Amino acid sequence: MTYSPATQDQLLAIRVNAGIEELAQSERFAAAEPDMVEAIVEGVGQFAAGEWAPLNRTGDLEGAKLENGVVRLPDGFAEAYKHYVEQGWNAIASPGEFGGQGLPFTLACNVLENLGTANMAFNLLPMLSVGAIEALEHHGSRELQEKYLPQLVSGAWSGTMNLTEPQAGSDVGALRTTAHPIEDGEHAGKWSIKGQKIYITWGEHELAENIIHLVLARTPNAPEGSRGISLFVVPKFHVKPDGSLGARNDLRCVSIEHKLGINASPTCVMSYGDNGECVGELVGAENRGLAAMFTMMNNARINVGNQGVQIGERATQQATDYAAERIQSARAGSGDKQPVAILEHPDVRRMILRMKALTEGMRALLYYTAGQTDRGTLGDEAAKAHGEICVPLIKAWGTDAGTEVASLGIQVHGGMGYVEETGAAQHWRDSRIAPIYEGTNGIQAADLVTRKLGLEGGEALIGFLEEIARDCAEEPTLFALAGDCAGVARWMREDASLDDKLAGSVPFCTMMAVLVAGWQLVKQRDAVAEGASPALATTKPVTVRFFLERIVPEAAGLKASAIAGAELLYSLESSALLA
Amino acid sequence: MTYSPATQDQLLAIRVNAGIEELAQSERFAAAEPDMVEAIVEGVGQFAAGEWAPLNRTGDLEGAKLENGVVRLPDGFAEAYKHYVEQGWNAIASPGEFGGQGLPFTLACNVLENLGTANMAFNLLPMLSVGAIEALEHHGSRELQEKYLPQLVSGAWSGTMNLTEPQAGSDVGALRTTAHPIEDGEHAGKWSIKGQKIYITWGEHELAENIIHLVLARTPNAPEGSRGISLFVVPKFHVKPDGSLGARNDLRCVSIEHKLGINASPTCVMSYGDNGECVGELVGAENRGLAAMFTMMNNARINVGNQGVQIGERATQQATDYAAERIQSARAGSGDKQPVAILEHPDVRRMILRMKALTEGMRALLYYTAGQTDRGTLGDEAAKAHGEICVPLIKAWGTDAGTEVASLGIQVHGGMGYVEETGAAQHWRDSRIAPIYEGTNGIQAADLVTRKLGLEGGEALIGFLEEIARDCAEEPTLFALAGDCAGVARWMREDASLDDKLAGSVPFCTMMAVLVAGWQLVKQRDAVAEGASPALATTKPVTVRFFLERIVPEAAGLKASAIAGAELLYSLESSALLA
Repeated sequence: MTYSPATQDQLLAIRVNAGIEELAQSERFAAAEPDMVEAIVEGVGQFAAGEWAPLNRTGDLEGAKLENGVVRLPDGFAEAYKHYVEQGWNAIASPGEFGGQGLPFTLACNVLENLGTANMAFNLLPMLSVGAIEALEHHGSRELQEKYLPQLVSGAWSGTMNLTEPQAGSDVGALRTTAHPIEDGEHAGKWSIKGQKIYITWGEHELAENIIHLVLARTPNAPEGSRGISLFVVPKFHVKPDGSLGARNDLRCVSIEHKLGINASPTCVMSYGDNGECVGELVGAENRGLAAMFTMMNNARINVGNQGVQIGERATQQATDYAAERIQSARAGSGDKQPVAILEHPDVRRMILRMKALTEGMRALLYYTAGQTDRGTLGDEAAKAHGEICVPLIKAWGTDAGTEVASLGIQVHGGMGYVEETGAAQHWRDSRIAPIYEGTNGIQAADLVTRKLGLEGGEALIGFLEEIARDCAEEPTLFALAGDCAGVARWMREDASLDDKLAGSVPFCTMMAVLVAGWQLVKQRDAVAEGASPALATTKPVTVRFFLERIVPEAAGLKASAIAGAELLYSLESSALLA
Repeated sequence: MTYSPATQDQLLAIRVNAGIEELAQSERFAAAEPDMVEAIVEGVGQFAAGEWAPLNRTGDLEGAKLENGVVRLPDGFAEAYKHYVEQGWNAIASPGEFGGQGLPFTLACNVLENLGTANMAFNLLPMLSVGAIEALEHHGSRELQEKYLPQLVSGAWSGTMNLTEPQAGSDVGALRTTAHPIEDGEHAGKWSIKGQKIYITWGEHELAENIIHLVLARTPNAPEGSRGISLFVVPKFHVKPDGSLGARNDLRCVSIEHKLGINASPTCVMSYGDNGECVGELVGAENRGLAAMFTMMNNARINVGNQGVQIGERATQQATDYAAERIQSARAGSGDKQPVAILEHPDVRRMILRMKALTEGMRALLYYTAGQTDRGTLGDEAAKAHGEICVPLIKAWGTDAGTEVASLGIQVHGGMGYVEETGAAQHWRDSRIAPIYEGTNGIQAADLVTRKLGLEGGEALIGFLEEIARDCAEEPTLFALAGDCAGVARWMREDASLDDKLAGSVPFCTMMAVLVAGWQLVKQRDAVAEGASPALATTKPVTVRFFLERIVPEAAGLKASAIAGAELLYSLESSALLA
């Protein structure tokens, strides 16, 4: 049940799709020189496979458990987290002044990819901490940064994001948690927080010394809806002026969810201020909390799309190993009666190649998106726009394709795939959260057809599609899909109502994602042909051809759905849909 | 968590797609007159929703448990099974001379559909018993029939199928369980069975008074492979000449599997003859066991495809109810700030309509296949061939689409879908076995492109596609898909190697299934337009249009994969696929 880190394919994607060498030419990312990049990719790959992967199965079987307000993890998690912190993997992309290495986001993606391939549920702990770091980095006062960032960056403390409440899911603006100014006493000038939050990932645990909760709440007289939301930092233990830990804050984990998967990740119901003594500090300006959240949302969504790559890689390796070992039936039509490994049978081979092609396509899209994001950080506005267009693509398609690959992994295992002991089923169960959290895939698709379609008055998406079409003139399926995407985009801009756009958003999002992934795979294939990765010289042309010949045409089949419009959807009264 | 039986849509499918009125004109099925049909469909729907559905959740949570060799089910299962037997639902399609009602298979499908919508795991108990009944009905001696059938038909006893062994899954011919003739003593003339079988559904339990195991085994000097397999009937308790139960036979349940879903269905490892005293009786001729199994395999595969309909119906109703109740966010672009039920949002509506359209499409295909099978029983050879072509379609696509619908059901629930307490996740977990058992969907697709493609020298499939194209001349997407399917079939017959056919088999199977389902939905729509089902007059045109405009074009996108051939799959050495 172990696996080999996909080091070579990661390095290829980091070079070709993210363009790390160009990034390293900037002053800001000068440290990302080739030796450093290789050391990180190889190092974290070995660490993750060696120390985190062995905990994946026990994490699923035993899971996180709440006992008397304390969340317990299975044996080994505490030590594996300690080693992770000691080796400095938490600090890759964080600011140098707070102890980080200031490297590109692209490399932080690679750290998460490797850790998540090893153990998706465990990896949510660093993933959420990154969000807290980014929130404080971009919106916290200098004082808050100095107080919290060094320990968050090292990983000694972890972070959480507290948005959701029972009545406020996709509609964050409906939240009711309150924050009142504290006028007197030790905490004067700070805020008293009161409310309950749900779905708080790693909301309580004892792997880190402190947990820094980022909590959205309403101040008195705040405007209704999303314009009246402020962001607060609420530590589990108060932090004294000298940086040491003080008393426990008034917050607690009320319960943890019984979920379909990612069982090692405690999904907490958190209660703040049961005794009226929960203290938080305002991050950024009052009523600007949602804007602050949006700052880190792009990266968080890319990180969730990354989970599709992770599950895809792990499920593919496991299924391929199984298919090479499992002997069953003679090769049809061969005349030979000897049973062979099922990997020799055409349809099993098709499934394995599909899993590989999808995973490599997701990875190419992931690192392209990350690289464009890094260019955006350096001030390249066109790259920034391309990155923003790709965020919903990698989040939505990456997570859908991750679930598809995990499902194919079960299918390759046959009956053994349905029995939990093989672990194939765990990947599928784990994968299924990713299309839901950090904005459902429907929300991603809505973002694509509204905000992203409208970037630069629509010119950003048009220009992007034109660039792809130019690059892919020699690739018939991709060129055709680029034309289909341009046609859908034109219809959405010129002829479609908002409802029409939303009705076609999910199929359009898939078409766009497959297009960009295919385009970036072609770049990989061409680079490999020029000697970029001798280790992949044999396989890369095959997986790319599989993607272009089989997966791209399927995406073209979605065009009819993308432009079908909303009229049919509303031709029935809602009541007619109920049984 | 309850639901309403889909009585009206079932009646429509039974009339329009199965053609029950025509079947009732035959002497054999004369009892299937309209009043009887309605009484069955309504009766079993009410029974299933009322008595079996409430056990679905506890069945999942508590599951079947093995305690000291005895399998325990949660409270309520024993009583619910007793009521099922008392009301006569087990006997619908079984021969009248053994206590059955001799009604068409179509109506037995409806009984299973309703029971499985209520409780998929529980429904496997009658499903497997039907297989045992059919094996004995078609291959057992008169003596065996009189000994076993009356109690199996009533449901007082249940049946199992024992094919799989650890080394013999899809390759049944590799099995090693042995049968030796007993020469002396009480059981002289019978056979001593010895071996271990795995994945035996409902292999042990105490809901029925006796369990009749149908076991495949090898007799001494049997030829190797699938031509040396014989079928035995092996009761849990010996049956005395007067029909009463005797001593316990030498067989036992060794363990039950920890599975991804269908937890209330005990999946047993069965051991026969640990003490050398397991007694069985030969069914049919020696070495003809696999042929006997094939007799009932068609119906068994249709019954598994039926599970896609079942999960689809249940998941759709649950998601629709949730979407109508869950209030979140204002309607985009409406100007109104009031949050609305999520069913009002375009993409949620799209998901709900997709779930409905897929479920109704599966149902139309299911009852068409069942009706053709019944016509085959009456001697209509063309109908028999159409039915046989459709068996892999409903099994493979029905189960894939069932899983897709269940996944959409989770997505509609958002975060609540990932939490087990809503039950949405259970449907998805339960559904995932159906693409695997009773011949994986890859095996179904292989059956389509080899045996079914070759029926009547290829004429059966051609004629079938021509009939569909004629009927669908006015439906542009269906007509185009019929042309695509004909093109693939022609390529497969004329230009493709066996490997090429197998490499394209799964996408072709999906294309064919969507085509036939769409064609049968059009028949439903037209019948409804002529007044066939006033209750469906509003919704049916909408779901059919959704299917034709959006789902059919997607299937056309699979054509490239269907004709891509096998060359690319084998252009890499197997070793190059391993990490």
